[in-house]
Amino acid sequence: MKVRVGINGYGTIGKRTATAINMQDDMEVVGVTKTKPTYEAVAANDLGLPLYVPDESADSFKKAGIKIAGTIKDMYKKADIVVDCTPGSVAEAYKKEYADAGIKGIFQGGEDHSLTGISFNASANYKESWGAQFSRVVSCNTTGLIRTLYPVDKYFKIQSAFATLIRRSADPSDSKNGPINAVEPVLKIPTHHGPDVQSIMPWINIQTMAVKVPTTLMHLHTVTVKLGTEATTEDIVALWKKTPRVKLVSGKSGIKSSAQIMELARDLGRPRGDMYEIVVWEDGTKVVGDTLYFYQAVHQESDVIPEIVDCIRSMCRMEEDPLVSMEKTDKAMGI
Amino acid sequence: MKVRVGINGYGTIGKRTATAINMQDDMEVVGVTKTKPTYEAVAANDLGLPLYVPDESADSFKKAGIKIAGTIKDMYKKADIVVDCTPGSVAEAYKKEYADAGIKGIFQGGEDHSLTGISFNASANYKESWGAQFSRVVSCNTTGLIRTLYPVDKYFKIQSAFATLIRRSADPSDSKNGPINAVEPVLKIPTHHGPDVQSIMPWINIQTMAVKVPTTLMHLHTVTVKLGTEATTEDIVALWKKTPRVKLVSGKSGIKSSAQIMELARDLGRPRGDMYEIVVWEDGTKVVGDTLYFYQAVHQESDVIPEIVDCIRSMCRMEEDPLVSMEKTDKAMGI
Amino acid sequence: MKVRVGINGYGTIGKRTATAINMQDDMEVVGVTKTKPTYEAVAANDLGLPLYVPDESADSFKKAGIKIAGTIKDMYKKADIVVDCTPGSVAEAYKKEYADAGIKGIFQGGEDHSLTGISFNASANYKESWGAQFSRVVSCNTTGLIRTLYPVDKYFKIQSAFATLIRRSADPSDSKNGPINAVEPVLKIPTHHGPDVQSIMPWINIQTMAVKVPTTLMHLHTVTVKLGTEATTEDIVALWKKTPRVKLVSGKSGIKSSAQIMELARDLGRPRGDMYEIVVWEDGTKVVGDTLYFYQAVHQESDVIPEIVDCIRSMCRMEEDPLVSMEKTDKAMGI
Amino acid sequence: MKVRVGINGYGTIGKRTATAINMQDDMEVVGVTKTKPTYEAVAANDLGLPLYVPDESADSFKKAGIKIAGTIKDMYKKADIVVDCTPGSVAEAYKKEYADAGIKGIFQGGEDHSLTGISFNASANYKESWGAQFSRVVSCNTTGLIRTLYPVDKYFKIQSAFATLIRRSADPSDSKNGPINAVEPVLKIPTHHGPDVQSIMPWINIQTMAVKVPTTLMHLHTVTVKLGTEATTEDIVALWKKTPRVKLVSGKSGIKSSAQIMELARDLGRPRGDMYEIVVWEDGTKVVGDTLYFYQAVHQESDVIPEIVDCIRSMCRMEEDPLVSMEKTDKAMGI
Repeated sequence: MKVRVGINGYGTIGKRTATAINMQDDMEVVGVTKTKPTYEAVAANDLGLPLYVPDESADSFKKAGIKIAGTIKDMYKKADIVVDCTPGSVAEAYKKEYADAGIKGIFQGGEDHSLTGISFNASANYKESWGAQFSRVVSCNTTGLIRTLYPVDKYFKIQSAFATLIRRSADPSDSKNGPINAVEPVLKIPTHHGPDVQSIMPWINIQTMAVKVPTTLMHLHTVTVKLGTEATTEDIVALWKKTPRVKLVSGKSGIKSSAQIMELARDLGRPRGDMYEIVVWEDGTKVVGDTLYFYQAVHQESDVIPEIVDCIRSMCRMEEDPLVSMEKTDKAMGI
Repeated sequence: MKVRVGINGYGTIGKRTATAINMQDDMEVVGVTKTKPTYEAVAANDLGLPLYVPDESADSFKKAGIKIAGTIKDMYKKADIVVDCTPGSVAEAYKKEYADAGIKGIFQGGEDHSLTGISFNASANYKESWGAQFSRVVSCNTTGLIRTLYPVDKYFKIQSAFATLIRRSADPSDSKNGPINAVEPVLKIPTHHGPDVQSIMPWINIQTMAVKVPTTLMHLHTVTVKLGTEATTEDIVALWKKTPRVKLVSGKSGIKSSAQIMELARDLGRPRGDMYEIVVWEDGTKVVGDTLYFYQAVHQESDVIPEIVDCIRSMCRMEEDPLVSMEKTDKAMGI
Repeated sequence: MKVRVGINGYGTIGKRTATAINMQDDMEVVGVTKTKPTYEAVAANDLGLPLYVPDESADSFKKAGIKIAGTIKDMYKKADIVVDCTPGSVAEAYKKEYADAGIKGIFQGGEDHSLTGISFNASANYKESWGAQFSRVVSCNTTGLIRTLYPVDKYFKIQSAFATLIRRSADPSDSKNGPINAVEPVLKIPTHHGPDVQSIMPWINIQTMAVKVPTTLMHLHTVTVKLGTEATTEDIVALWKKTPRVKLVSGKSGIKSSAQIMELARDLGRPRGDMYEIVVWEDGTKVVGDTLYFYQAVHQESDVIPEIVDCIRSMCRMEEDPLVSMEKTDKAMGI
Repeated sequence: MKVRVGINGYGTIGKRTATAINMQDDMEVVGVTKTKPTYEAVAANDLGLPLYVPDESADSFKKAGIKIAGTIKDMYKKADIVVDCTPGSVAEAYKKEYADAGIKGIFQGGEDHSLTGISFNASANYKESWGAQFSRVVSCNTTGLIRTLYPVDKYFKIQSAFATLIRRSADPSDSKNGPINAVEPVLKIPTHHGPDVQSIMPWINIQTMAVKVPTTLMHLHTVTVKLGTEATTEDIVALWKKTPRVKLVSGKSGIKSSAQIMELARDLGRPRGDMYEIVVWEDGTKVVGDTLYFYQAVHQESDVIPEIVDCIRSMCRMEEDPLVSMEKTDKAMGI
């Protein structure tokens, strides 16, 4: 029998999680929730996803002609696990609801590690969430840093790492937030991204700074790593070539910016034009002395999606071997 | 037997044409051409599209490890018709090559009407290209204006029309062109878009102005139409609701800008996140006295693609009834 | 004795009004107000402008080390007239305060005409505000339309006019608002800008539509005018060449977009790089038959500033002849 | 007698150099050169700057009604020194022309250090250009790094430094270049900016990476420095507070991004809204252990201008003491 998954919140992450889960053969979406009768709710309907809404919103959905399957609490009854994709500040309350309903819950990286006490990355700590009632898939940026740094640390020991996160300021579907023409630093430094990586890799020495820039497509990181053992540029590239969910590209082939990465994702026929992999420039990677320099791009809308699928498998005790789960997820999603 | 289509130029339009043709049951792509061994060439390979290259480029493709099927002239031998998606200024020379090879050719709206003497829009003049050796599918903006204005003219007579074209300045995959923070008028007025509409609807009185703005997603038009017969806002909306390849959306449902239109296209599972339809805001349409005001958005990367498919059917005498061809195209493409 | 002017609100318009007034020899700034101890408050201090703050804010200014001259009500006692540059929705309450203090008040175009019953444009209706206690300088876009259309109507009679307003989405100093990459139509059509022009020129037949685009520099209008009497392109250009506060530029000289207009303003040594004039492209102006087509650019931060100065002269009965006032204002401001 | 300065190239840097030099009492602009009769040439004329043009361009200027003073070679005869603000790739040829004319020449940071063998920064190595025939003022980014790092190194010894340069992709007056919505890494790493800092401070251990982002206003750097001696955050801030041409700002006062920095420059009444200082966020500066983290913003259009003035004084043996020259320059420019 398939594991039954409810998705609380049908926005950027929620809708992608729904698509990814229904691509797997061992889990299925039993419902998604939406608070307002928007075009996204209509699209969910069109895709055949049962729509659950807050009690007080039922009328507005009916008025808009959108079919609903029940209230959010009705959805809990159908689900083994809920993927919480709600916006910030309400997670604590929802966690209690999931607990009361006797179901499991996965939270997003926008929440603090302390909410669940366990954070998840498939490569680095799949087993820590085994059988857990609650876990948290770390944020897009943290996932990005772990995907590339975990194998480097495993094979070449990281003495210290530093990353500057050049962050997209709004998602492509957001026409409200700016800036239109400015760059904004995150003044509280070092930023929280370093400690967030440490929620998965507590032993790593990493610091981060961050700025917001006027783009919607992807985050981009500049990363420097002081290596503990000797390595060449070729060693690092070879390592990442065999690392799941890391994709090497080259400026020489015309991929000069985040724009061409997104074009590649569209050309590959990915759902919603998503790039689930962390993208590293092969010709933007270099070891000089004991220091590794590289650029990587993170598709904030989608890189955590395969991690969520794996997290479900770990929490619901569906597959013990992380590599088997990851391979299964990736194959189903066309990665 | 399927009609065999070669695609000369595998960029924004070429790659989409390839995808659309291979979705049809009465035509197939026999090859695409590419001049440089870019990531797009690799993607074409991955999709199983035979790649033809200029004589002098074969080496660079081999060096890049990209499999090629032959030279561009080799492709002509396999094709009944070529969809020319080459950049500007070389069409004249290619037309001669197609003629010499004894095959048909479809050109894009970037070329002048005089190149072929026939221009194409499926709703408005499908039959004019019947059996023709050469035709030209009008540009994205012109296609957009014809899609909405042709039915309005048919049912309510257009006395005069005026449109301001607010144009995206670069496609999403283009990281070179700006402006980053400016608006640029097209100073030669009235702009060429009016006469281009007249290449399909020679009787219509239409003038246009245009500006370029710093966005990559879609063009947006403000249109005013002086109607010849009485009509209400509801009449116009009802007409467009049944017009093929015109899609009505509403600001009330959350579609406030081109950003949410593109999000909707992604949510609908469209290949490359394309919106083939001309999108009109229902709550941004209004008849006041004898004047119709409306906004429409044009996805410059994809709105002409279904027209190209229909144009092939007309030129190759595959289906006489425009409505049957359009329905067949749209069904196959998920429109 | 100079007329004493208080400025309520020291943001985009307030700070420019202060600069412009202190450039005149018949009026002076007696104070500006600010609610928060920002860098702009510091700059006001540095410029020697007495700073008045709300009662409850005095402490926060002291804590930030910013010298204040008193409360907002203290400022009223020093002023003959207040230029209200407060944000939306509080004008009604302030109007009462100015009335209670027995002083005059000028409001901005963000407020409704009904607030004051009189709206102001120096060229078109200077005398209507003569001696008035309250008046309203129309918005940047409305001012822009009146500057060019009023003389055209006077000399060539406007039968009807239509404008599409391509609006900047945020001011240069605003890093919060977007969109970053989208175009957003103003769905309620025709937009309010037409009626706003009619608050000054009630006899004119004008309709407008509007979109927001991702730029900070200037608004840009496409305008079409059906002329009542015969005119050539040259007639119109010659008329605008002698119209105050209208500036003709040319694409041929390198001014291709709003970016180069702003550069020109900087090169001319204008305070804050402001372009007080409405800028019309000479090679983007054309009469075809009875219709005039043109593009104009509006610097939203500054085009109303000289109007505010003239409005003070009219309301305070300082100069009867509008042309004399305008010339005086413009000479002092370097226009 | 004033030193006579010719300016070869009247673009972004050339026009600012002209303004700055004419603000000094010991040097004057004897001419500027321009190759095309653009609006910038008109503005130069309006400012009373003698305009020199290539032989073959004289006609086009006359046709455009722009007064010229002679050919470029005529300007050499009037000048003691030329500030070369020509675009890339022609410096070598011009250097020969200046040598042949027996005059001195200053080049910009776009040229290689090897062109002149001497590079210039007023604080760090004023005396190296003393009496030199040719020198080179390092680029805006390099100047920015030296302004903040030189004093830190002097007082607290820099063991190693690393900077990520988040670069504006086009200047405000440029409406041609993009990207509109992408981030582009500089793939050749470490980038050339480190060695360029070393052209002034050869002993320093510094590495850099860089990305281009869609903004026109300023570059922004994230910088980390491993300190050789103990220092607190307060020590560093206090040091920069007394460092010339470094300006501390605070997010708390509303300066959250490059947008508000540019607004501040406009509010301060700076010519063209320029910010000559390197701007460092006081609340974005922090020492953790032996590492200093900070953000700084660089106004690419103007930060080198005061350096150029000082470089003239050093090369022409006008003032021996760098601090006296800098103070004189800054006072005249209102810094």
